[in-house]
Amino acid sequence: MKKIGIVGGTGYTGVELMRLLAHHPEVEVVAMTSRGEAGRRVDDLYPSLRGHTDLVFSEPGEADLAGCDLVFFATPNGIAMQEAPALLEQGVRVIDLAADYRLKDLDVWSRWYGMEHASPDWVEQAVYGLPELYRDEIRGAQLVANPGCHVTATTLAVLPLMGLDWVDHGRIVADTKSGASGAGRSAAVHTLMAEAGESVRTYAAAGHRHQPEIRQTLTTIAEREIGLTFVPHLVPMVRGIESTVYLPLVGEPGENVQRLYERYYAEEPFVDVMPPNSHPETRSVRGNNICRMAVHRPLDGPMLVVSSVIDNLVKGAAGQAVQNMNLMLGCDESAGLELVALSP
Amino acid sequence: MKKIGIVGGTGYTGVELMRLLAHHPEVEVVAMTSRGEAGRRVDDLYPSLRGHTDLVFSEPGEADLAGCDLVFFATPNGIAMQEAPALLEQGVRVIDLAADYRLKDLDVWSRWYGMEHASPDWVEQAVYGLPELYRDEIRGAQLVANPGCHVTATTLAVLPLMGLDWVDHGRIVADTKSGASGAGRSAAVHTLMAEAGESVRTYAAAGHRHQPEIRQTLTTIAEREIGLTFVPHLVPMVRGIESTVYLPLVGEPGENVQRLYERYYAEEPFVDVMPPNSHPETRSVRGNNICRMAVHRPLDGPMLVVSSVIDNLVKGAAGQAVQNMNLMLGCDESAGLELVALSP
Amino acid sequence: MKKIGIVGGTGYTGVELMRLLAHHPEVEVVAMTSRGEAGRRVDDLYPSLRGHTDLVFSEPGEADLAGCDLVFFATPNGIAMQEAPALLEQGVRVIDLAADYRLKDLDVWSRWYGMEHASPDWVEQAVYGLPELYRDEIRGAQLVANPGCHVTATTLAVLPLMGLDWVDHGRIVADTKSGASGAGRSAAVHTLMAEAGESVRTYAAAGHRHQPEIRQTLTTIAEREIGLTFVPHLVPMVRGIESTVYLPLVGEPGENVQRLYERYYAEEPFVDVMPPNSHPETRSVRGNNICRMAVHRPLDGPMLVVSSVIDNLVKGAAGQAVQNMNLMLGCDESAGLELVALSP
Amino acid sequence: MKKIGIVGGTGYTGVELMRLLAHHPEVEVVAMTSRGEAGRRVDDLYPSLRGHTDLVFSEPGEADLAGCDLVFFATPNGIAMQEAPALLEQGVRVIDLAADYRLKDLDVWSRWYGMEHASPDWVEQAVYGLPELYRDEIRGAQLVANPGCHVTATTLAVLPLMGLDWVDHGRIVADTKSGASGAGRSAAVHTLMAEAGESVRTYAAAGHRHQPEIRQTLTTIAEREIGLTFVPHLVPMVRGIESTVYLPLVGEPGENVQRLYERYYAEEPFVDVMPPNSHPETRSVRGNNICRMAVHRPLDGPMLVVSSVIDNLVKGAAGQAVQNMNLMLGCDESAGLELVALSP
Repeated sequence: MKKIGIVGGTGYTGVELMRLLAHHPEVEVVAMTSRGEAGRRVDDLYPSLRGHTDLVFSEPGEADLAGCDLVFFATPNGIAMQEAPALLEQGVRVIDLAADYRLKDLDVWSRWYGMEHASPDWVEQAVYGLPELYRDEIRGAQLVANPGCHVTATTLAVLPLMGLDWVDHGRIVADTKSGASGAGRSAAVHTLMAEAGESVRTYAAAGHRHQPEIRQTLTTIAEREIGLTFVPHLVPMVRGIESTVYLPLVGEPGENVQRLYERYYAEEPFVDVMPPNSHPETRSVRGNNICRMAVHRPLDGPMLVVSSVIDNLVKGAAGQAVQNMNLMLGCDESAGLELVALSP
Repeated sequence: MKKIGIVGGTGYTGVELMRLLAHHPEVEVVAMTSRGEAGRRVDDLYPSLRGHTDLVFSEPGEADLAGCDLVFFATPNGIAMQEAPALLEQGVRVIDLAADYRLKDLDVWSRWYGMEHASPDWVEQAVYGLPELYRDEIRGAQLVANPGCHVTATTLAVLPLMGLDWVDHGRIVADTKSGASGAGRSAAVHTLMAEAGESVRTYAAAGHRHQPEIRQTLTTIAEREIGLTFVPHLVPMVRGIESTVYLPLVGEPGENVQRLYERYYAEEPFVDVMPPNSHPETRSVRGNNICRMAVHRPLDGPMLVVSSVIDNLVKGAAGQAVQNMNLMLGCDESAGLELVALSP
Repeated sequence: MKKIGIVGGTGYTGVELMRLLAHHPEVEVVAMTSRGEAGRRVDDLYPSLRGHTDLVFSEPGEADLAGCDLVFFATPNGIAMQEAPALLEQGVRVIDLAADYRLKDLDVWSRWYGMEHASPDWVEQAVYGLPELYRDEIRGAQLVANPGCHVTATTLAVLPLMGLDWVDHGRIVADTKSGASGAGRSAAVHTLMAEAGESVRTYAAAGHRHQPEIRQTLTTIAEREIGLTFVPHLVPMVRGIESTVYLPLVGEPGENVQRLYERYYAEEPFVDVMPPNSHPETRSVRGNNICRMAVHRPLDGPMLVVSSVIDNLVKGAAGQAVQNMNLMLGCDESAGLELVALSP
Repeated sequence: MKKIGIVGGTGYTGVELMRLLAHHPEVEVVAMTSRGEAGRRVDDLYPSLRGHTDLVFSEPGEADLAGCDLVFFATPNGIAMQEAPALLEQGVRVIDLAADYRLKDLDVWSRWYGMEHASPDWVEQAVYGLPELYRDEIRGAQLVANPGCHVTATTLAVLPLMGLDWVDHGRIVADTKSGASGAGRSAAVHTLMAEAGESVRTYAAAGHRHQPEIRQTLTTIAEREIGLTFVPHLVPMVRGIESTVYLPLVGEPGENVQRLYERYYAEEPFVDVMPPNSHPETRSVRGNNICRMAVHRPLDGPMLVVSSVIDNLVKGAAGQAVQNMNLMLGCDESAGLELVALSP
């Protein structure tokens, strides 16, 4: 069994990693750190894990992370950039579920995250953890930057169209709807049940950190400038993200778009292009690592609409991280991830 | 007291009309018809009305609707076009909350609603019941076509920009999110709690009946062709619609857009342009007739984003109908509609 | 217009008082204090109030509360007992929505609330603000202790049976289900949408502060010892409390229980005894001050079951406070409270 | 691989059986029947199963159910009693997830289910499928009656106390709260999102079919008369049941109740007695087959309170059915059921 450590395991990505790895045949979580909960049993904080683990949260300094084959950072932004390098230098492989190593342009990163980067050299070496694009690089990577949740749903929705001349790359709109677990397990007023229940609200309409992250990938793949308007919305549910992406056409599609999508993702274990006229719903991926999507051309007009759904805590966070781990450790890419979605 | 009748009062718009009119100082509901519930007390079906009404549902043929000053049709599409003309010809004024008289182009109407129109002459005479545009015509109208819910949120969001040369009218995107009450009170599988709870789904991505309705109004006001992509989403809540509208710029705005909006709606009792950097939430209008909106220009780029929220059963249906009734009957436009939203 | 002050207006009872008083014909809120939000417009914190108030939160020390006819304390437990006496001594009338003056036995109070009482003399003078029991005393009271939310639903459900010999007063069970707004607008983990959504949980099963409060009233009215087991549950909604109370019979009821209830509450403006075989739902009282209830005797066995519902923020807090205010100020008892519930 | 058939697979228990059996190493679903959906791919109706099955719904008469090792009836009440005997007589083993074979007293059954029983002989032979009580009988059974969902949560909560002299068996109260999926996937008004969302309601307070089912088991185990008041409530969520059971004490407990529970269930793979002072939440068992429970004695008074939670579709239906299947087919009892709950 490969040894796995989790830094900052009290949040939702931490418990979700535990859930997925409990099903994994080749790895074992040997350490889970938390400043606030050190000494407490993990399954006391998360009763859903009762019977599946005997782990106790340990102080960050006291866990033997250096003895792990791979360490997940399930920490807030700004922690991994400080703490991961020490492990990386000892040869430990690291997957950061936060944003520290996602953006290659450090100026852009600093502007959006409001701090100086503490380990810029590692930014350069980090591989962006979207297996559908960078599978081979991930296999050999020492440091993987796990993509954001809105980002994953949106990027996968439009990848097959990038670089095609009949798509207007300058006026792409992505409108996402996400559940409250995306805001994490931190005491806050605006994500209280009494605030977020029975209501929808737009947020960060003037600009959100995930915009430059999506744009970075699309620009690289399309090899041209990308104009992207991205507006997220909070909807009253716990899990799930739906991204509806609007792409103007600047000519007739060179081929059947449905078939283009099906071919593009034919070999992908975790992308499901649904049949024509489908409407994905987030519950169809609740708890599993699939991104389901459907392509429409409303009223045969000059706009393509792609709707994609993921579970923000799985393909949008912990599941994609496990997928990356599988690639890095030479396990079957789907190990631990073959769960059927919980529906209804 | 003016006498009011409601045809088809068992649905959500029916009970909502009753709720609002219970607060109204100048009108009285004297008849509420229902084929299925005739003979049953209205407050037996809707216990929320206990203590506010003694009405009993009557058979459509037996109610004295001709004796009413005004009759609301809260019926499914296709009923008012058959039953309203008899009342109209007797001089009764009518507000149809369904779609029968909304579209002026009968071919378009037939295509979207799948039937021949039964009273095309009245289509021509009907006034579209958006008071912000047609207040004077509504005052004198005998027949008012109450707008759709997605339509109201979306149309109000973009009206101030229509006809301006620096707005691209050909690539407008409207992405709406609505609660389950919009689907009405009919036994159905897809809007069961167990189907629609804890999930988001796109629907009608290939084309929805509200698209031509929005387009009709915008084309008229802008006096140019409108290209509109409209995609609705069902989110797990009971009431509320949020519409996020994306309008590409084709030049620098000729004036401050925030001020433009504030000026445009300065005199409107039921439109609230929120301050810069606001993010409307549907709960802020729960139960009242306000449409709140905020305008953004993300990252100072070439796209305007307007987010508007309404209560789909109030400003999106019964409340707007009462507003129209007030205009038609010469009451204060806000009578019965001055409720504060229920938040949280 | 009578002048009203609200101390601690940033919580849900504060905004709810504002909502209800906006409809009130005889009073005006002239001051709303908040340490944390002083200087901020009230409608900036609560956009639902936009258009209904120009108030700005003021520093507690700076508001002219002494000039008010009546002041509501919408503060956490332990504040009113310190700050209300100064106002009371100047002749201002006070309604405390927290628990400071609810329990007459100071030892019991201290045990449950974990502090010494700061103004025990005023405890004695305080009138318990349940109008259905203490209407006359409330009229003349200077200080009213507004009942708790679970307490109101449960107490009203069983009042008609108290003191009857065929009811076992020693084995009463009350099982309540409440929405998340009952926990207030404070940053906390356990009431996050992601924690409380899509889940039910029991809390305080070993004992909850509302137990002695219910017991105090029932003991007084029944004039005998009360054995009460009270267990609250958190359910995934924003507003509403349902209390199911189980009362064993120790003999055949001396009269028809349905008629007993109807007679007991016949004159009450805010208690609705529903017809036989009814099942109250919380949405039937959403946003209004009614307590609806139904009485059952399952399988004609030796147990009475009463199910009662209230809106925890209205009849369970701000609405009942306004009802008390109306009595104290000589207004119509229903002034500002005649709203129809928002259903669906 | 053992061959499994599912009769009536379009409901929630059908899809849930598919989800669980997709993870099962020793069985294969070879037929799924549906009158209404015959010819349609199963994963077209349930996109959550895409990638996990190629099954097509077949006409009831056309599937080779007789060739199966075991057939699940996931049909409405009244179907299995007509259709199962033909299979049983051919030696096929059957698990009925409906109520047809649960009650041994046919008069009681007819009274609650409103029909005559069509195969009374098989009622006698049927084994009640609660493995915690009847594990050995289930192993050898040809026909198993899978328990109801409220029943499972409630029965397991009180089993350890049955027959003890210090427990009053005559005044047991069970108050359950369940999500909307318990009502099944049938078009209905009262379980629409717009009806059941943001609201709690009691139902069947005068008597519910699950009461005699619970009572039958408790009477058998306790070997004395059981007085049980059972009142179910619908809460606004999709999955989960919480049962709070109140048991009066008629003397001091003969031993520590916590330890009694822990000992009673020590060997059970799917019952989790939580530590003292715990409060189970339904999300802690979402998607898995565990029943978690906690025991309290409020204020050290004369009442025991047990709160137990299950996923109504898993331990309350399909999961328990798979557990029974495992026993009947000689598989590991936990095969296919070792999933970690989905929390948050």
